[in-house]
Amino acid sequence: MDRFNRNNRIVAITQILLNNPSRVISLNNFLEPLNAAKSSISEDIVIIRETIERLQLGAVESISGASGGIKYIPKISKEDTNKFVKDLCEKLNSKERIVPGNFIYINDIMFNPKIVSKAATILSSLFEGQQVDYVVTVETKGIPLAYEVSKNLGVELIIVRRDTKVTEGPTVSINYVSGSSGRIQNMSLSKKSLKKGSKCIFIDDFMKGGGTAKGIMDLLKEFESELLGIGVLIDNIQSDKKVIKEYFSIIEFLGIDEDENVLLKPSNLIK
Amino acid sequence: MDRFNRNNRIVAITQILLNNPSRVISLNNFLEPLNAAKSSISEDIVIIRETIERLQLGAVESISGASGGIKYIPKISKEDTNKFVKDLCEKLNSKERIVPGNFIYINDIMFNPKIVSKAATILSSLFEGQQVDYVVTVETKGIPLAYEVSKNLGVELIIVRRDTKVTEGPTVSINYVSGSSGRIQNMSLSKKSLKKGSKCIFIDDFMKGGGTAKGIMDLLKEFESELLGIGVLIDNIQSDKKVIKEYFSIIEFLGIDEDENVLLKPSNLIK
Repeated sequence: MDRFNRNNRIVAITQILLNNPSRVISLNNFLEPLNAAKSSISEDIVIIRETIERLQLGAVESISGASGGIKYIPKISKEDTNKFVKDLCEKLNSKERIVPGNFIYINDIMFNPKIVSKAATILSSLFEGQQVDYVVTVETKGIPLAYEVSKNLGVELIIVRRDTKVTEGPTVSINYVSGSSGRIQNMSLSKKSLKKGSKCIFIDDFMKGGGTAKGIMDLLKEFESELLGIGVLIDNIQSDKKVIKEYFSIIEFLGIDEDENVLLKPSNLIK
Repeated sequence: MDRFNRNNRIVAITQILLNNPSRVISLNNFLEPLNAAKSSISEDIVIIRETIERLQLGAVESISGASGGIKYIPKISKEDTNKFVKDLCEKLNSKERIVPGNFIYINDIMFNPKIVSKAATILSSLFEGQQVDYVVTVETKGIPLAYEVSKNLGVELIIVRRDTKVTEGPTVSINYVSGSSGRIQNMSLSKKSLKKGSKCIFIDDFMKGGGTAKGIMDLLKEFESELLGIGVLIDNIQSDKKVIKEYFSIIEFLGIDEDENVLLKPSNLIK
């Protein structure tokens, strides 16, 4: 096989790192496909790390020891975050999004890979360094966001269902009280989904009363597992009876005024 | 601002391309952040294209004209595809996956970013070059896969619901007959979801009788839109009364034998 020069190797290593966020990749993985010496690869990685950190696109960590290697952690700069959140608030503030019942239509936002991947990097950065085993979400709208967060953190996603499915085998179901409406609802999860003693984070599109998040916490207890933290894209801060106190959000929703303006602002976390 | 050297620029441009698959990026976008001349950037891109194509990681296309630029199209080599599909068949062939009713448990596969992103690249490559406006899926298990396909193709995802939601405004609902069970089911989609005259592809985790795919076709007709193609991860080829004839699959499921072996093989497409 032909040798690759430094430029070629840098493209290849950058690609492998970006496609495997938060996963430790042994330097040996690069030697054969790139037909290069370990010392050359090490020098390549120094250049890649320096550039990624200078452009505030993430961090490249070295892990020593037998199972060591390098690990890419996606990040987003303060400046990009602020611009992204400001633009998203503007995009969300539109009369056409208002749905009877004072809801706002956000499907196009939650299912747009460009938006979802940036929002996910903002959220995953908040949990970086914690030992997260799974990212949990509840169907349906938050799935792409939670999926991207799980990808950034290098772990599997778990999707809690609203009802039981025949294809998933034995399930654990719980009832929970919706914090805002007071209604009793059901959520269920296949027993095969997670190992005892797992540490999870819950990611969702929207938080109102926090009842769903509280339900997830209770459901995880049934699996002898723990909820480490919560992150949502939009927090409805009108709700004055939140059953959850600690969570991260990107945007705060303050309601709809009489002129049909959707009132939104970046959350305290972002400012 | 300091200048970036060639190596630095290559890292940065590779990162931008990989994070924006199938989107045309104007060269002007690189000039200011990288503080470089257009001629230098053009040379960088030649190196990146050459490496990506040599390693069979994708293609980098140049689009000329006023709205031109460069576009990265994710691909996966024949060799990687074969290895991936073989490994996945092995992973799926496990007694522990068998769920009463002759179903196989695949949540851990469908919610694993490492597996999903590769499967998505296999599927998105099949539709590359066609003018796809949206990727459509139906909740829930196929969402991460469909999301990754939509990301690869640079378009938005549409998630069809099993029931209507108050947060989504007016919806269009249809009934369809499940091809395998003969049962009548419902699917619905918010009227805001897609524009008239859109061209879509349908991506799902599993196909049995094809009733769901047929339902999606009918639902899209209600939006005066068109289904260009179908791609699934697993095709249950035991079903001899498929209502859909043309579709792509990655793995074929042949049933479970008396020794509880899950019978699977790479689809014709892959071999």
